[in-house]
Amino acid sequence: MRWVLPDHIQDALPSEAASLEALRRRLLDAFRVRGYQLVMPPLLEYLDSLTTGAGQDLKLRTFKLVDQVSGRTMGVRADMTPQVTRIDAHLLNRAGVSRLCYCGSVLHTLPSTLTATREPLQLGAELYGHAGIDADIEIVRLLADVLRLAEVPASRIDIGHVGLFHALAALAGMVPEREEELFDLLQAKDVPGLKEITVGVAEPVRTALLRLPALYGGAEVIDEAAACMPESAEIRAALDDLRRLAAALEDLPISFDLADLRGYHYHSGVVFAAYGGGSPAALALGGRYDRVGEAFGRARPATGFSLDLRELALRLPAAVVPGAILAPLEGTAGLAAAVEALRAAGEAVMSRLPGHEGTWNDAGCDRQLVMRQGAWVVEPLQGE
Amino acid sequence: MRWVLPDHIQDALPSEAASLEALRRRLLDAFRVRGYQLVMPPLLEYLDSLTTGAGQDLKLRTFKLVDQVSGRTMGVRADMTPQVTRIDAHLLNRAGVSRLCYCGSVLHTLPSTLTATREPLQLGAELYGHAGIDADIEIVRLLADVLRLAEVPASRIDIGHVGLFHALAALAGMVPEREEELFDLLQAKDVPGLKEITVGVAEPVRTALLRLPALYGGAEVIDEAAACMPESAEIRAALDDLRRLAAALEDLPISFDLADLRGYHYHSGVVFAAYGGGSPAALALGGRYDRVGEAFGRARPATGFSLDLRELALRLPAAVVPGAILAPLEGTAGLAAAVEALRAAGEAVMSRLPGHEGTWNDAGCDRQLVMRQGAWVVEPLQGE
Repeated sequence: MRWVLPDHIQDALPSEAASLEALRRRLLDAFRVRGYQLVMPPLLEYLDSLTTGAGQDLKLRTFKLVDQVSGRTMGVRADMTPQVTRIDAHLLNRAGVSRLCYCGSVLHTLPSTLTATREPLQLGAELYGHAGIDADIEIVRLLADVLRLAEVPASRIDIGHVGLFHALAALAGMVPEREEELFDLLQAKDVPGLKEITVGVAEPVRTALLRLPALYGGAEVIDEAAACMPESAEIRAALDDLRRLAAALEDLPISFDLADLRGYHYHSGVVFAAYGGGSPAALALGGRYDRVGEAFGRARPATGFSLDLRELALRLPAAVVPGAILAPLEGTAGLAAAVEALRAAGEAVMSRLPGHEGTWNDAGCDRQLVMRQGAWVVEPLQGE
Repeated sequence: MRWVLPDHIQDALPSEAASLEALRRRLLDAFRVRGYQLVMPPLLEYLDSLTTGAGQDLKLRTFKLVDQVSGRTMGVRADMTPQVTRIDAHLLNRAGVSRLCYCGSVLHTLPSTLTATREPLQLGAELYGHAGIDADIEIVRLLADVLRLAEVPASRIDIGHVGLFHALAALAGMVPEREEELFDLLQAKDVPGLKEITVGVAEPVRTALLRLPALYGGAEVIDEAAACMPESAEIRAALDDLRRLAAALEDLPISFDLADLRGYHYHSGVVFAAYGGGSPAALALGGRYDRVGEAFGRARPATGFSLDLRELALRLPAAVVPGAILAPLEGTAGLAAAVEALRAAGEAVMSRLPGHEGTWNDAGCDRQLVMRQGAWVVEPLQGE
């Protein structure tokens, strides 16, 4: 059957496509009025550009192709963030702040979950050139605004800080392989495993590492962390960042999870995940990733978030595509003007082509333009 | 250099991206009010679905990938028309007219010309379920409207009819290989070659074939064709179609070229190409392709056109991205309301993050929001 699509690949038919398009415009407009400029990186790049600074996971999820022009290996983008980072680093070449946004399809070789699509419609915003927590605060608020505008307000925004983990691992004197192992155990909140791997780690670092999985909840966990963490400038700075963020965003449903390190290979500071719309998985992910630009020869502070517009649209009630108006193919001179006026008012008006086989209701019409007493009027269309 | 893109692959930076987005919205809105419903087919499909009914050329231009889920060969779409035909044939399953439109990136293994992109942003409209010339007339007019709305009005719309060639080849009794050869000679307007290949073809078919390359110009070529063509119902029908089209579209800059068969493998009736904006190549191509749906198990009459939005945007003056307004990060309670009001009016307002290194002009600001005598006012921003 030639019309069957690959697994985890879908068409968006008129109702879903109308939803996606409306959402896309609303969110890109929200970015624009907040000073975020739209960029459109390509679907294809050389593989090493696409996966620069990203983890092994992204490399495995990227479709590879051979470039018939250069003979080099290219990839179809699986994540647009490194592309936008490349644009900031090299093409815009700004010394100061750069606020950018994007919306486009990405492809994954395998779906990330049993129900996920392999073609997310990634939409996101990134703020480059500012290392302070004010930039992270702006980005988390922007994400909350975007979810509110999409009518799927965040029910919870979980916040973590990769700096805490990095500082503790450094204080524990761990070699990179051990650090990776430690990371996996923390992500799994595997306390027995953590106890084993930290045998030999000096106090108070060991206790602090073992406490991390329990440090989740309201802003009070920042003080709990301060009480059990060893003295370190990096740890103090991370906790100060989190305190400022908690104070600035107290109107939002934020919570803290200090063992949540989702973008470990990529992120360098505050990380966050937004939930809502009854979805068990996060609707949006983001955080600070100051080191990714290095690979493009220009390290710039960076923070941002992205989400899958298709997933977000699923959380909305199905869009009702407004019915169209059926107009005669030919009529008096007044017909063209009447059609033009309806279209200018945003109505969809289609011509009644002769010799039509199906019903016009089937074609999406629920009204018709008819001449009544010398004037063109719109009437309901039934069973035609 | 990790930030170099493959040949014929480009980023769209803020100014170009703003142009493309504005154009995309304007044209999709024009489709919508004319009753064309948006669909979004996927980037990836099984290869045989993607290249169904299409010529060898499209197969060569399609990037191939192996599906890790099924082990089957997939392709990245190089043309969205067959995808939209599949949607009409199977998913919508309408008996009558179906008007659909689409806009999305497609990828080509090799550029079609020395200067072409390998990632066109294809935008198009298709009308299914109506076999008459009225549908073709609607589509050509829609194309003319779209180009006018894009502010690149058509300077010429060349119209041909594949039915004439098919009828003559059938009357000449040619086997498929000879027909292909004849087609190539006609496309090249190679009269000596045509004379050679038609040796042995009976009159008046031979004279008609030899005359085809000279049949271009205004509507008068339809009568010239009628005078030299052999008697055939198919030829009569094709010439009648062209006559009706010429009469219905006399306000448009149409011309006829009866040897122009561009979509021979794909098209079955009227074909057309629109020129404008000083581009030597056609800006949009279209025509009737009633047989493509067969491969999806449901042959439906079909006519439509598509164009590359990137190519069209190149013909426009560069968009001036309006400058943003720089606002203080924190201020009195009135600040948030002032910012909100400016954003609601469509202005881009960005926060002055502390510790900024570059200039704010560099970041895209040309004005600033400042407190003057108790009120927030917008003033020019210079050298900051």
